[in-house]
Amino acid sequence: MRRDTRLSDLPEGEILRRIFPRLPESDSTLLGPGDDAAVIAAPDGRFVVTTDMMVHGPDFRLEWSTPYELGYKAAASNLADVAAMGAKPSALVVALAVPGDTPMSTLEQLADGLREACQFLAPGCGVVGGDLSASDTFTIAVTAFGDLDGRKPLTRAGARVGDVVALAGEPGWSSLGLALLFAQGTSEVDGERVPNARLMKKIRDELPNLIGRHLAPAPPVSLGVVAAQAGATACMDVSDSLTLDASRMAEASSVAIDFDHLVLDGFAAELSQAYGVELEVSRRAVLHGGEDHCLLACFPPGEVLPAGFTRVGTVIAGRTALDRVLLRGESIEPIGWNPYAQ
Amino acid sequence: MRRDTRLSDLPEGEILRRIFPRLPESDSTLLGPGDDAAVIAAPDGRFVVTTDMMVHGPDFRLEWSTPYELGYKAAASNLADVAAMGAKPSALVVALAVPGDTPMSTLEQLADGLREACQFLAPGCGVVGGDLSASDTFTIAVTAFGDLDGRKPLTRAGARVGDVVALAGEPGWSSLGLALLFAQGTSEVDGERVPNARLMKKIRDELPNLIGRHLAPAPPVSLGVVAAQAGATACMDVSDSLTLDASRMAEASSVAIDFDHLVLDGFAAELSQAYGVELEVSRRAVLHGGEDHCLLACFPPGEVLPAGFTRVGTVIAGRTALDRVLLRGESIEPIGWNPYAQ
Repeated sequence: MRRDTRLSDLPEGEILRRIFPRLPESDSTLLGPGDDAAVIAAPDGRFVVTTDMMVHGPDFRLEWSTPYELGYKAAASNLADVAAMGAKPSALVVALAVPGDTPMSTLEQLADGLREACQFLAPGCGVVGGDLSASDTFTIAVTAFGDLDGRKPLTRAGARVGDVVALAGEPGWSSLGLALLFAQGTSEVDGERVPNARLMKKIRDELPNLIGRHLAPAPPVSLGVVAAQAGATACMDVSDSLTLDASRMAEASSVAIDFDHLVLDGFAAELSQAYGVELEVSRRAVLHGGEDHCLLACFPPGEVLPAGFTRVGTVIAGRTALDRVLLRGESIEPIGWNPYAQ
Repeated sequence: MRRDTRLSDLPEGEILRRIFPRLPESDSTLLGPGDDAAVIAAPDGRFVVTTDMMVHGPDFRLEWSTPYELGYKAAASNLADVAAMGAKPSALVVALAVPGDTPMSTLEQLADGLREACQFLAPGCGVVGGDLSASDTFTIAVTAFGDLDGRKPLTRAGARVGDVVALAGEPGWSSLGLALLFAQGTSEVDGERVPNARLMKKIRDELPNLIGRHLAPAPPVSLGVVAAQAGATACMDVSDSLTLDASRMAEASSVAIDFDHLVLDGFAAELSQAYGVELEVSRRAVLHGGEDHCLLACFPPGEVLPAGFTRVGTVIAGRTALDRVLLRGESIEPIGWNPYAQ
């Protein structure tokens, strides 16, 4: 069998020449990759910027994710943050640090994932620059930019008492997908459960839909601008969990968010059926699971919600700092992703 | 002795609350850290962007660099890229991935280094957002932004035959500083030379000036705008080596760059004296050493060079693709930093 070309076999310039044609182009590029820096259009005199790093181990496993999925997810999670500001994603820069024995094809497939995420989730957005480093730990840092087209940014601080709380996206799927990977995609080595590529193949063949949203999420990126145009008062990306992120919105807005039990139970029932788990398990996934990249937005009462958003609760007056998130009037503890605790 | 507080002891929100007050503020912030994304002013309807990742192992060693120096260097190397476009740095975003047992004080000192680099090298530039992740490998990714104030960006493609080639900064110091660290700051463990913190303390006490430019470089950031205003035709950051980066400028401009032997020997002589090394060693450092973050710029013939720039050569007609860099008419091989080969 012919050995794959490794990065350490190639000069840096050759690696870049093989990746560049696969990357998505940005409509906003004034000067693209290849110089010390890129120049990007910011037509209204401002730009939105967010950055996010994905690290092998805590954030993904190469035994589970394909390089294509990694590229897709790295783009998607950043595009969701831009969307959450009510902005249209315009460009990405990507810094990558990988071991020298990484096959060249891994980077090519990663570029394919970046490209298709941009094409599918945010047409016109593309990669305008990047950096390539060596590391023992496979690491991807994406910085994403967006354009507000003259609008005010949608922050998490604008929710007002009486607003309707609405959600776009599918809460709970990503964390149940991850739980499935831990349960069926690991084997025991020296008393520890470690990701297993062979078992993963079986899961991919048999249960692709149940892991797809975890491995390559497709957040409702275009609905960020839609929410802003529809008069949303606040908006945020739900990446750590519905309750934890809602508590942040409630705190920033000095209000509380009261979720509707029945609506959330509807999400949970769908999850229970799909994954064959108890309702209690899927309820926890809806409330406390991370990485779904739903958009949580508030709209003035009486406003017709834009297509794609579901009413999930109401903004009420905040009582105490510990009482920011409620489930039909009962306060619940916001729990979600914490990078150093998990 | 009281144990340092570790990151894993603190919730993410508390970590951020301790870091934020230490970070430099940006004059361009319209919406700062704390939301899904920041909003930055881009007054002329464009912005310059560059990204760079520093990884423990290939790019720095915690036994050698203090967290303050890491923060300083991460900012400085990105500010230099913005400057090389002829732009004024406006803002940074910083993504950090570190082990959970990292002391909280490490992040605080790193923030101090970021702040002082901005204050010293690019007043008005500040950190507008970031991300904090867990990783076994200490990794810092900085993305930097700049403002062109209506000017055309200075690319590496604008050099013209007859132009004067000029350099701002101190070539060779960083690589000789690194060589000193390898020679005197390592001890043998299992047959390999590994960085040694105790030996490092001795070097810091006795030879601070010889390692300072490697550990916390202070590139001539303000001279990027100065070069643009003085009519520079091309400009770039010298990060991989003078010959390798000059070959990239020459290739992009379809010309060749002929360096002046005597001027480069002047740099080398100064280095030889400072480090007590043979002239041949310091000549190699000037030509092939990386990480100095000098600015290499071309100016029309007859133009008075701005203060801070030294004439180092002339742009001549390119002959063949392999003949891009010459030393007084003799072609030399461009050699420098390659991330996966070293």
